[in-house]
Amino acid sequence: MRIDILTIHPELLESPFNHSIIKRAKQKGLVEIVIHNIRDYSTDKHKSVDDYAFGGDAGMVMMCDPIFRCIEKLKAERHYDEVIYVTPDGKTLKQGISNRLATFENIIILCGHYKGVDHRIREHLVTLEISIGDYVLSGGELAAAVIVDSVVRIVPGVISDETSALTDSFQDGLLAPPVYTRPAVYNGWEVPAVLLSGNFKEISKWQEDQALSRTKLLRPDLLND
Amino acid sequence: MRIDILTIHPELLESPFNHSIIKRAKQKGLVEIVIHNIRDYSTDKHKSVDDYAFGGDAGMVMMCDPIFRCIEKLKAERHYDEVIYVTPDGKTLKQGISNRLATFENIIILCGHYKGVDHRIREHLVTLEISIGDYVLSGGELAAAVIVDSVVRIVPGVISDETSALTDSFQDGLLAPPVYTRPAVYNGWEVPAVLLSGNFKEISKWQEDQALSRTKLLRPDLLND
Repeated sequence: MRIDILTIHPELLESPFNHSIIKRAKQKGLVEIVIHNIRDYSTDKHKSVDDYAFGGDAGMVMMCDPIFRCIEKLKAERHYDEVIYVTPDGKTLKQGISNRLATFENIIILCGHYKGVDHRIREHLVTLEISIGDYVLSGGELAAAVIVDSVVRIVPGVISDETSALTDSFQDGLLAPPVYTRPAVYNGWEVPAVLLSGNFKEISKWQEDQALSRTKLLRPDLLND
Repeated sequence: MRIDILTIHPELLESPFNHSIIKRAKQKGLVEIVIHNIRDYSTDKHKSVDDYAFGGDAGMVMMCDPIFRCIEKLKAERHYDEVIYVTPDGKTLKQGISNRLATFENIIILCGHYKGVDHRIREHLVTLEISIGDYVLSGGELAAAVIVDSVVRIVPGVISDETSALTDSFQDGLLAPPVYTRPAVYNGWEVPAVLLSGNFKEISKWQEDQALSRTKLLRPDLLND
């Protein structure tokens, strides 16, 4: 899988993509992440990427031309399954969307900054708009990193223990049950006895009950989806 | 405002906190972000921070002791308004939560990794559990960075142009209207004529209509909240 990320702040994306799971996915050759500085595609002498908003509003808007040039160059080189724009008014990211993105071969992720990109880019070049949640960030870079992380970790072969990912929250529509590790008593706080019983049938039943009761308590909306 | 972040992967948080808006907020002395490596609080000779899950499941669980020691040390030094754990089964982050967090003096954010932290930490030390959305990440670090970014940008004085933040999506319960910048015609694509009219009353009406109609079309759920 290849992911091209377009940003005016490539330095924000250095550490999330050079450590831990994403680093291992890149080393194994399972994922290629290419970061493009939109400023490199600006053709004016100041390397401008933004300008004042039409209509007299506060805040800067990212210009069409450098983004258009960068996307067109990439599209001339290979086929992209989606050109994604991360924006608070996009479709809200859910695990199902990440699962679907993980099956793609090539995707572009465009990060907005300031007030966002000129709307004509969204109308004419972007094929999918994603929001990671109902809150505003200073730019799309962290949101892009979140999307990449949620996608890359489920690309087959990236996590060594695939059973582990299958018991994550949301993969079966339920929240995960509580987890505990040694010691069995810490600071007077005890691990539920069933988990120490060695009776795997009972343990499995307890975990299913916990997953269901925690979902009912904390996120009843998930049960209605 | 002071934010203490507890993680076993501090390197993941380097670039998001050392550039752009968060960097400026730190330089202005408006926000202090202190990252703690949980491993430094491990007392065994291998500096362990995780162990096998009770019950025989796949995946590692973060141990109580190093986290307990770190949080207790911090709480002995100052009062914390919240001890936050980022987890997919927490309360879903919304702009309103970020607005509330931005009013606090000191918060702790605990990042899980692997299958998460021993549940006893959540029961006895954590005061608020937050999820940034219904998807699973490889760890809590990116989620913590998202929370910090959404909070820090609305701390008074951080964004120079505060009018800009007020017209963001969600601050008034509506999605933001489309934005455009020069040129007025690009690649044959035109900016809506009203925005070029200079009639600010008409422009403002158009923007309100667009905000409402885009919210009705894309996120009708926001209008019912």
